Amino acid sequence: MRLSQFHLRTVKETPADAEIASHQLMLKAGMLRKLAAGLYTWSPLGLRVLRKVEAVVREEMDRSGAIELLMPTIQPQELWEETGRWEKFGGQLLKIRDRKEAGYCYGPTAEEVITDFARNELASYKQLPVNFYNIQTKFRDEIRPRFGVMRAREFLMKDAYSFHLDDDSLAAEYRNMYDAYGRIFTRLGLKFRAVFADTGAIGGSASHEFHVLADSGEDSIAWSDGSDYAANVELAEALAPGQRPAAAEAMRKVETPVQKTCEDVAALLGIPLARTVKSVALMGDEGTGFVLALVRGDHVVNEIKLAKLQGLAGYRLATEDEIRAHLGSEPGFLGPVAPKQAITVIADRSVAAMADFVVGANAPGFHLAGVNWGRDLPEPALVADIRNVVAGDPSPDGKGTLALARGIEVGHVFALGDRYSRAMGCTVLDAGGKATHPLMGCYGIGVSRIVAAAIEQNHDANGIVWPQAMAPWQVAVCVINPKGDAAVEEAADTLYRELGAAGIEAVLDDRGLRPGAMFADIELIGIPHRVVVSGRGLEAGTFEYRARSATESENLDRATLLARLTQ
Amino acid sequence: MRLSQFHLRTVKETPADAEIASHQLMLKAGMLRKLAAGLYTWSPLGLRVLRKVEAVVREEMDRSGAIELLMPTIQPQELWEETGRWEKFGGQLLKIRDRKEAGYCYGPTAEEVITDFARNELASYKQLPVNFYNIQTKFRDEIRPRFGVMRAREFLMKDAYSFHLDDDSLAAEYRNMYDAYGRIFTRLGLKFRAVFADTGAIGGSASHEFHVLADSGEDSIAWSDGSDYAANVELAEALAPGQRPAAAEAMRKVETPVQKTCEDVAALLGIPLARTVKSVALMGDEGTGFVLALVRGDHVVNEIKLAKLQGLAGYRLATEDEIRAHLGSEPGFLGPVAPKQAITVIADRSVAAMADFVVGANAPGFHLAGVNWGRDLPEPALVADIRNVVAGDPSPDGKGTLALARGIEVGHVFALGDRYSRAMGCTVLDAGGKATHPLMGCYGIGVSRIVAAAIEQNHDANGIVWPQAMAPWQVAVCVINPKGDAAVEEAADTLYRELGAAGIEAVLDDRGLRPGAMFADIELIGIPHRVVVSGRGLEAGTFEYRARSATESENLDRATLLARLTQ
Repeated sequence: MRLSQFHLRTVKETPADAEIASHQLMLKAGMLRKLAAGLYTWSPLGLRVLRKVEAVVREEMDRSGAIELLMPTIQPQELWEETGRWEKFGGQLLKIRDRKEAGYCYGPTAEEVITDFARNELASYKQLPVNFYNIQTKFRDEIRPRFGVMRAREFLMKDAYSFHLDDDSLAAEYRNMYDAYGRIFTRLGLKFRAVFADTGAIGGSASHEFHVLADSGEDSIAWSDGSDYAANVELAEALAPGQRPAAAEAMRKVETPVQKTCEDVAALLGIPLARTVKSVALMGDEGTGFVLALVRGDHVVNEIKLAKLQGLAGYRLATEDEIRAHLGSEPGFLGPVAPKQAITVIADRSVAAMADFVVGANAPGFHLAGVNWGRDLPEPALVADIRNVVAGDPSPDGKGTLALARGIEVGHVFALGDRYSRAMGCTVLDAGGKATHPLMGCYGIGVSRIVAAAIEQNHDANGIVWPQAMAPWQVAVCVINPKGDAAVEEAADTLYRELGAAGIEAVLDDRGLRPGAMFADIELIGIPHRVVVSGRGLEAGTFEYRARSATESENLDRATLLARLTQ
Repeated sequence: MRLSQFHLRTVKETPADAEIASHQLMLKAGMLRKLAAGLYTWSPLGLRVLRKVEAVVREEMDRSGAIELLMPTIQPQELWEETGRWEKFGGQLLKIRDRKEAGYCYGPTAEEVITDFARNELASYKQLPVNFYNIQTKFRDEIRPRFGVMRAREFLMKDAYSFHLDDDSLAAEYRNMYDAYGRIFTRLGLKFRAVFADTGAIGGSASHEFHVLADSGEDSIAWSDGSDYAANVELAEALAPGQRPAAAEAMRKVETPVQKTCEDVAALLGIPLARTVKSVALMGDEGTGFVLALVRGDHVVNEIKLAKLQGLAGYRLATEDEIRAHLGSEPGFLGPVAPKQAITVIADRSVAAMADFVVGANAPGFHLAGVNWGRDLPEPALVADIRNVVAGDPSPDGKGTLALARGIEVGHVFALGDRYSRAMGCTVLDAGGKATHPLMGCYGIGVSRIVAAAIEQNHDANGIVWPQAMAPWQVAVCVINPKGDAAVEEAADTLYRELGAAGIEAVLDDRGLRPGAMFADIELIGIPHRVVVSGRGLEAGTFEYRARSATESENLDRATLLARLTQ
């Protein structure tokens, strides 16, 4: 491609309404233009990148044995009523009435349509297992669309749906998709983690989210440095630490006049935060009553884990009145020792393994130090994992140590079970001739979102730094030729054509810009390799080469340059 | 592809609600499944064909220098109000309200969106000319969707929009697109015509429709056998015939007791239909009054041409009372000779060139024969082209003779002018620094419609006969191996892989069907070449080969077969 024949329009100013780096850079690079809230036109430059992602997704889906089809974007209301999602899906479902007042929606996903397809097309177990996918425009009427294509209303999604006779077959395809996703994100050159996920509202027995790691990610992920374990921080299990040490100190009351937080108390006493214990007062479900949940001072209570405990499904924080009634103190100085009334103490695993710890004294201005289980207070009623993991925790799979990272969800694999096939009366005959509801899996990838996520992960002060597989072109051949020297033009042209012949996607910047403006554009749009052809270089028999990720240029002769670029 | 790993599901019965061959065959071949009125899922087989068409369209658009981008399917109401089309477009525009009650439509076309893009992205004449295209899903809320994807509501369309500083540039790009369309339909292997079209409601200065020729087409086309001239029958000019011959007969009254039509009169008198003249009584605009329009008995009056004549823009057929008042007769026996009141006679060019012709006598049960202009009645007030052309007419461009055909419109090129750029305030600075509204062209291709149109043109009693470029696969390797002979399996596999290595898209029918069912499927889905691998063939050292379009098979050795297929 010659840039003079291409519509490239970069912008110098950072757009005011773009909050995150990828949105800013996509607008500055001219990849996107906003049409309306959450609706974007992909410019020629943006579309080149989007198509690269789409092609990799398609190739790996095909390689995995999934079969591509194409479902309409507009879906009839009746199908959504069969599964109850017409009402349940919520405001993100864009509902439409046609000229005959028939109800439709713009598909945000396609479980209903594919299950309708399957109940007509699949009759026998001989047709199973099968995995259908499509790469199709979707719409979610986000209440607050933002971050450009990261959370647009109209977006491009790959969604796949598999059908199985039994759990083993579903599990095998789930693994097959899991592996395909790994290949996709690896080929795209992205740092990512497959994260064990809560299946949430969609239901089903297994679920992994695929996250591109980026500091700006909305999700917090715990991952092991010794295995492929990764989970949302809120779901990762905090393992029990080693044995509780023997008590070494006597319990003593210490003055903490204004020190209400563990941090302040630890600082006052000159002890590590990990020696303090935080007491969180809760009211459990009916029959459970007042609960004191204990976590180490350097840990954070995990509400999801708490709510999974018996009697705490509907728990709430205790009121000050309830706290005074049970502990005889005000918040800030609470502790499990000698409560005013009988209470239930739930200790996090790490707290149960502590000796000589510090807790509130249930008296304003005082804490207790040197506290020990069994001696100063009864063993906890329940020891459980009720905290978020932290960096340095052992990995729950026993391999390696957890690190924390932020991630952007770009893919999802679900084992759905028979929820949809059952609701919609989709059956196949098994080998015994009996009608059975096939088990389903569903597997999504946010194709357009990947583009934004990749930029969040790969950019610097000068712009985007594309991984090779996503770059609009691999090499930019920049022509510096203010005098219109025919030899320079010819040299650039020859190099450009040589690269093409070698199978390298090159773009020739023949726009005649000044070097500064040209280089700024090429850096902003993130081309991995830049080669400058100039009169001075021609005289020296060299080309100036610079990788997008490098800070210095090198002058290379033709052979060395071509060898470098064809590596 | 191995068919055992592919979802192919053909149907024996012809679907009851499919009226035309392409719709029937697409359903029988399992290319489509109906989701709702005018909404279809493209099955894996159907999608393969759709993507082939899409790829050819994209390649030729790219080759033409047009630049691909991607506009959203959902478009904001405000833009459509700027051009007045929010109201004017009519019921086909699917209007949508989002959760915030903001108005949108599902784009049936994208003039508004691209002009909005252009007014933001284009600033200078230096960026012109430019031609942006996208291949995107469109929606038209057809009041009566039918014929499958031929007139679906949701469909895939390639739409391109070019921007120009002057007419010459627009004309050049119009020609460039015209040529690109020719390459596209030629590469797709379709018989087509570029038809000069009425620009109708869209306005603009030039327009061609591209029609795939098929007997079932909705449009009637006149095309020259001596040039590339083609036009809608209603728009094709009927040239003036040669000089009027001298009168040879005397005018005489002939009895035609019940003969009211030209056909019946000609039969009674034993003369060619072309010697009779049909009189059509009209009331023109105010001031024009009663008009008798005359065409030859074997011709048909063209209402569009009539309405373009002065004083006839709002014409209507005359009532029986008006006819009696002016001609003194009832319909069926009307003629231009000796009317009761003064009337205006408009003669078609071919009527003006007649001598010794037959017309109604303005008396029930009588016609006049041997009528001659200037002698029996005054020369006509106006001689004009007011008829449809017929097969055998000379081509209006002076080259060759017209033939008639039926066509399916699959493409359209328009010179739009500045209608949209002016309405939406899209300007660029010209070389003199003056803001000017760029001229626009728009160029559409119905990608999904082409698939149906191709089938209308290419099918037989056994199914689809794909042109090579659109076939889902080029070659089907059919395995007949009821005994599970490993040598047969291996031979089929080897051939399949050899074809792949030779760059030929082959499908291996390894489903283990009986030959009859297998061959019926392969013929139905239209694979151009079929090769049978069987134990008997292996013994003889041959493969049974048959082209889809052939009636007989041939037994070919491996080398001959491969040479044939790689041709």
